[in-house]
Amino acid sequence: MFEFELIKKSNKSKARRGRFTTPHGVIETPVFMPVGTQATVKAMTTDELKAIGAMIILSNTYHLHVRPGSELIRQAGGLHRFMNWSGPILTDSGGFQVFSLAGQRKITEDGVTFQSHLDGRKIFMGPEEAVAIQHNLGSDIMMVFDECTPIPAEYDYVRDSVDRTTRWAKRCLEAHDRPDKQALFGIVQGGLYPELRQRSVEGLIPLDFPGYAIGGLSVGESKHDMLEALDYIPDLLPENKPRYLMGVGTPADLVDGVLRGVDMFDCVAPTRIARHGMAWTSQGDVSIKQSRYEQDFTPLDPECGCDTCRNYSKAYLRHLFKAGEILSARLMTMHNLYYMIDLMSQVRQAIESDTFEDWAENFFAKQAKTR
Amino acid sequence: MFEFELIKKSNKSKARRGRFTTPHGVIETPVFMPVGTQATVKAMTTDELKAIGAMIILSNTYHLHVRPGSELIRQAGGLHRFMNWSGPILTDSGGFQVFSLAGQRKITEDGVTFQSHLDGRKIFMGPEEAVAIQHNLGSDIMMVFDECTPIPAEYDYVRDSVDRTTRWAKRCLEAHDRPDKQALFGIVQGGLYPELRQRSVEGLIPLDFPGYAIGGLSVGESKHDMLEALDYIPDLLPENKPRYLMGVGTPADLVDGVLRGVDMFDCVAPTRIARHGMAWTSQGDVSIKQSRYEQDFTPLDPECGCDTCRNYSKAYLRHLFKAGEILSARLMTMHNLYYMIDLMSQVRQAIESDTFEDWAENFFAKQAKTR
Repeated sequence: MFEFELIKKSNKSKARRGRFTTPHGVIETPVFMPVGTQATVKAMTTDELKAIGAMIILSNTYHLHVRPGSELIRQAGGLHRFMNWSGPILTDSGGFQVFSLAGQRKITEDGVTFQSHLDGRKIFMGPEEAVAIQHNLGSDIMMVFDECTPIPAEYDYVRDSVDRTTRWAKRCLEAHDRPDKQALFGIVQGGLYPELRQRSVEGLIPLDFPGYAIGGLSVGESKHDMLEALDYIPDLLPENKPRYLMGVGTPADLVDGVLRGVDMFDCVAPTRIARHGMAWTSQGDVSIKQSRYEQDFTPLDPECGCDTCRNYSKAYLRHLFKAGEILSARLMTMHNLYYMIDLMSQVRQAIESDTFEDWAENFFAKQAKTR
Repeated sequence: MFEFELIKKSNKSKARRGRFTTPHGVIETPVFMPVGTQATVKAMTTDELKAIGAMIILSNTYHLHVRPGSELIRQAGGLHRFMNWSGPILTDSGGFQVFSLAGQRKITEDGVTFQSHLDGRKIFMGPEEAVAIQHNLGSDIMMVFDECTPIPAEYDYVRDSVDRTTRWAKRCLEAHDRPDKQALFGIVQGGLYPELRQRSVEGLIPLDFPGYAIGGLSVGESKHDMLEALDYIPDLLPENKPRYLMGVGTPADLVDGVLRGVDMFDCVAPTRIARHGMAWTSQGDVSIKQSRYEQDFTPLDPECGCDTCRNYSKAYLRHLFKAGEILSARLMTMHNLYYMIDLMSQVRQAIESDTFEDWAENFFAKQAKTR
């Protein structure tokens, strides 16, 4: 269980084609993971996710802890059963939300005391709590409890935080008594400081996690800074373990990440922007509310095979959006997720056939033309 | 085209089993028609509607006229193509919304000038306009432009209104130049005055509509008053034409209507209450937000075969509702529509097998027990 098989490595870039086996199924990498924050990928059923080829979805420890509570989900038979998803699930540790979403917080060596964003009640979460909650959820891939430091942040603060995150990672590992059923991934932090990223990795490698995440990116830094960090961080990680870039990103970000040796991605953007009437397409970005689409009876993306593009016109999608209809969120979300999942399927095929770098060049050229 | 075949008449009640043929398919009656006000049955795709057995859906002339405009829908190839529904569509005339929803209005013999509920702009609609809009929409069944009088209303006002509605019905018929492609139904008004209902019917019968609707009920009167009206109105109508009770109603209302000789029903209730977390079930009404369902891992309705009941628990549905998730509206709507459509399927089978009155008795007994 939790074996990562490296099927192919590109000779012209750091792109990798892999396969990660979990109790709920195999994940072909590189992979995009749709985000189901509150035990639902917003506006989608799990049957639809399966139909469009989602191989793994993500859910949020923090959100499920504050509502409906992980004990309830344990009683329901775990998160898979609760939300009717039979494939693999990755749960984050809650660290990111505790530091970005929750109210005033106090960090100690033990963990973090913070206020629920829902009702303000005080909650304590540390490594042991994050693991216990994820045990209740029964996810296939759990994440260690970490501090996601902001960018910019003082060197000394980030260094102390990295060291604490490493100590927390050890405690998570010690609290995790079912490594055969749930894989626990470590998280590399260190902001934009190469020596602190190195320090983070050196602390984690001896713990021999079955996978490693790159945290602390996509937190407001420039795209240039992110790519610079991605130019060296994956190289620090063991080759035979999956690498997961947390919270990233746009279609271009994914291709950039794959070129630099990343295997797994997640992001709320495709579902979130869909609800705001935005679509990513092979022809560039589409903001469906624009009046230019009022009498446009062509599909959102003429090259797309999703249900939305096969059955509905831009004019209809614009009408639904303007009218505030739920179907608008559904159809736009369906398209964006299909687009991301199909994109990664193209990426995998291109790596397999030794054409990924050309494919990526074409992809970026087309993006440049349509923006 | 537009032939109504009376397959079976009950000996013990006025219940009828019929079949109405339209250009987009056959409607087995008695039938419940889901409402797609703004060219979408809220929260549902048309594929889902088809899958749960919806045989005809309703859409709204008034709403589509104010947004996105019927000319746009004509350019899209008609409403069927615009919203991706290949089955029959019934459009109301806009009369009901003009009198219930729009801003200050002035009624003349020509028609009604009113303010759009969206932006306050002045709109004129009369019989010719209502027909022209419905021609643009291309619905299988069109409705005449009528005045839906409130209850209570003065006898003299209702009498004058009935006479004007009859004159408007004639003008609709004269403006309707494609009776082979779109059927135009007449609407009986007259409030709770038996002699005015009679007067309305006498005005309409000579016009020989292919179907007749009973309007002006379910507008705030008591259930007792509605049933009293339904005890005699259907008898005034020709036997060989379908009878459509507009805007009705609850599961019990439908059974009551069928017992009194009604063939077609529509109502926003199943979709609207679903979005407020309410479900109709074989075990009675369920308000999913109630704390009693917090740890209830059984389906919404153990006797139901819909996707919601096959795949999700009350505890999960409650979580989705409390979390404000779109999937809550989707799953609750799916169930309520399935319930109504399945109910009418049971009704049709019971009429065919001469057991409808017993079936109805059991239905009401069960309802009484679970409320």
